[in-house]
Parts: sequence; structure tokens; C-alpha cells
Amino acid sequence: MTNAGRLIGVGTGPGDPELLTVKAIKAIDAAEVVAYFAKRGRGGNGRAIVEHLIGDKILLPLYYPVTTEIETSDETYRNQITSFYDEAAEAVGGHLDIGRTVAVLSEGDPLFYGSYMHLHVRLANRYQTEVIPGISAMSGCWSLAGLPIVQGDDVLSVLPGTMEEAELRRRLSDTQAAVIMKVGRNLPKIRRALEASGRLSEAVYVERGTMVNAAMTKLADRPDGEAPYFSLVLVPGWESRR
Amino acid sequence: MTNAGRLIGVGTGPGDPELLTVKAIKAIDAAEVVAYFAKRGRGGNGRAIVEHLIGDKILLPLYYPVTTEIETSDETYRNQITSFYDEAAEAVGGHLDIGRTVAVLSEGDPLFYGSYMHLHVRLANRYQTEVIPGISAMSGCWSLAGLPIVQGDDVLSVLPGTMEEAELRRRLSDTQAAVIMKVGRNLPKIRRALEASGRLSEAVYVERGTMVNAAMTKLADRPDGEAPYFSLVLVPGWESRR
Repeated sequence: MTNAGRLIGVGTGPGDPELLTVKAIKAIDAAEVVAYFAKRGRGGNGRAIVEHLIGDKILLPLYYPVTTEIETSDETYRNQITSFYDEAAEAVGGHLDIGRTVAVLSEGDPLFYGSYMHLHVRLANRYQTEVIPGISAMSGCWSLAGLPIVQGDDVLSVLPGTMEEAELRRRLSDTQAAVIMKVGRNLPKIRRALEASGRLSEAVYVERGTMVNAAMTKLADRPDGEAPYFSLVLVPGWESRR
Repeated sequence: MTNAGRLIGVGTGPGDPELLTVKAIKAIDAAEVVAYFAKRGRGGNGRAIVEHLIGDKILLPLYYPVTTEIETSDETYRNQITSFYDEAAEAVGGHLDIGRTVAVLSEGDPLFYGSYMHLHVRLANRYQTEVIPGISAMSGCWSLAGLPIVQGDDVLSVLPGTMEEAELRRRLSDTQAAVIMKVGRNLPKIRRALEASGRLSEAVYVERGTMVNAAMTKLADRPDGEAPYFSLVLVPGWESRR
């Protein structure tokens, strides 16, 4: 194992290449292999963020299996995705075994809802491993919006928009601040839950966080209808804004 | 106003200067004035992180009023701290008014429990303002610990350790993952709440996030007794680790 390479989970931040950390840039520079998750036929957002750093490194794309039209609760889907992560870990391990340092790109922050985590749990016990944090999408969004999100003794709840409406309503009524992820087709339900919990007027909708084409608006002013999966809704806390 | 300078809230990350983003470094480079919060007589942690970038810039330290031994719920304290933020905003505004760009350092992420927020709400409506996100302390900590914190549809609750024990217990029983901030003297209470909610065995205690002298351990293995105020307890979610 002493000759094995190092595994580095590299947070690339939410989209703007200037939101890479110095540590992330050095790690990519030092790696022989750059691995990244992507949809088949796509370049991958993580890779796009670090394109200027890749040079002639070995690229290891990890293509998600085609999963359209399969419910994520479906057992077939679960098996397919588990096999995929097993194979991805094996592919990364192959490079580590012959002494290559592998940087695995992870949009946002690697251990915060990132695909990298699936490699981490399979490999970190066998190889020297380091995780370099990145700016999360939610942080990119509230910074872009200039929206103070939590202060003092506020509770922040990070909630998936996939949650049942009653549960979402309950949690929105039981927190000072909230970030709702995975908006997409859940937008009408999220709006109803915010309305019922009396938080709609404060909610801000942010699309494509720190990308060039970012957009944000008060949620109350945005019609329902198609929203990108990776858009976010922010509900600021900090009621006594001293 | 057209000749006024720009206000930039700059996230410095949790301590390691390599966790500064490229954008933060450029913003500090471009600023004429670097403002930072600190305890009187101290250099300030935010300033220490960017010391190598300061050169001959104008430094504007913003010293917190002496608040030891005063309860934060006390009205005298509230008035004192409100006046302090008013005066700090005025001091920053003085530089902005004569066309200087002011970078206000904020440890971690400016709009996430950061003192910068108090300047932001007082000045952002009057001056051109930009907020540059930073790596939060919690993200630095779970990355250092190599601890996958949330995945898939997990809920994450960020909870202040100052919360009442029963309330803390209730919230710990009602979330997949949790980050408990402001540990310090609240450690025994936090331990009891984790025990009562059945989460103690999973909890990880992290001290001084990404500083040189960082330390982490399973909370169950750490005795009660003095803990730094800025230590954190992490309770990972992601039960089905596929």
C-alpha cells in the first residue's frame, strides 16, 4: 500500500471558477488523474469549472447509468446505482493501485450531498485520503442574493424539496431559516408549504447559483412552471435584525 | 454616490489560508481598506488568515465592546452591541464615502452566522456591495473528519448548543443529520441531549476546524470539561450508505 496513490475529494464550488480554493487548485495541479461524475454524453459541471487546470492529465469520466423514468425508490434503480458506484470505485482504485494520485471533482462541497461520498465510503479505508471542502451551492446562492441567512441562535434546516407536503410544511413552521434543495418539479408543492407556514413572503428563489446566467427573484413573484432541479429556495432567519 | 467605493464582504474560510477562494484573494488585493472584527487587544482570526495579503493596506479593526459577564439577553448588552455595529458601519462608510473599496473580512462564510451581516444590513442599500462566500467552519470540520454528513433526501439541522436541553433533544430526534454549533460550556448538556435521542454513538467532536492544532474525536470518547466556544459536534446522516 505504501506505493499506492492518494485519493483527494476536491470541492469545486458552485460554478464560478474563481470560487475554487487555493487548496483545490493545488490538489488538481498535483494529481495525475482527474475523475468526475457526469451524465453520459455530457462534459460534467465539475469538469467545466476546472477545465483551465486539466492540461494533459488523465481524465476518468464516471458516467451515471441512464435512470430516466425509473423511480428512485425502485429496487432496480437502487441496484443499478449501487453497481455503478462499485464500478466507479474500482476504476478509481485501479489508478490508485499503480501509484497515481486521483483528484475526484465534486461540485459544491464533497461531503455535503455530493456523489464523491459514494467513492469515499468505498475507498477511504484502503487508501490515503483527503477531502478539500468547497463552497456549497446554497452558500453561493445566499451570497449572490446578498441575503443574510442565519445569525445568533437561529436554527437552519436544509430540506429536500422531494419531501411530502405536510412534512415540509411542518418543518418550515419549526425553524428560523430554511434552504430547500431539489426544487425542480416540486416548486408548486414548495410554494403551498411556504404559504401554509406563513413564510412565502420571505422566500427567495435562486436559479443556477453562481453561473453566468444566474437568476434570483422573490418566490412570490415567480410563476410556477418548469424550474431547474438544482435551483434553491432560501428562507432567511434572523428576525431581530439588530 | 457614483464616486463612492465598493463594500465587499469577504469569506476567509475556517482558518487554513489555502481555503481562501481565488475570488477572495483578488478582492483583498483590490481593496484599499481591510476591515475586520476582533476582540480588543487581539489581532482577529480573520486577519490572521489573510495576513500574507495585507501589505500596506489601510487596516480598520472593529473591536467588539467588552461583553464578558453580561447575559446576551440583557438589554444593556443588546444596546451596547447595537451601538457598536452602528459605529462600525459608520467607520466603514467613512472610507466608502471617499471612494475607497473596503474588504470586510468574515471568518467562515459572511452571511452564515458572520458579524459581517450587521454591516451588510446597514450599508448594502447605500453602497455597491458584493458578498464573496467562504468555506464555513462546519464544512471545514466534516471535511477534516472525512465524515459524509448528508446524502440524497437527508434533512440537515444546524443547531446552536445554547438551546434548551429538551428542545435540543427534540430536534436531534427529528433530523437525519445535525451540526451543533457554539459548544463551549454547553458540552455536558449537548451530550445528554444526544444520549437521550439515541445519537451519541454517531456524534463526532471537532475542535478548531482547519487550524494547525485541529483535533477531533468521537464525542463518546471525549470527557466533559472545557471546550472552545467554536468547537462543533457533527452527527452524520445518510443511514443507507450505498
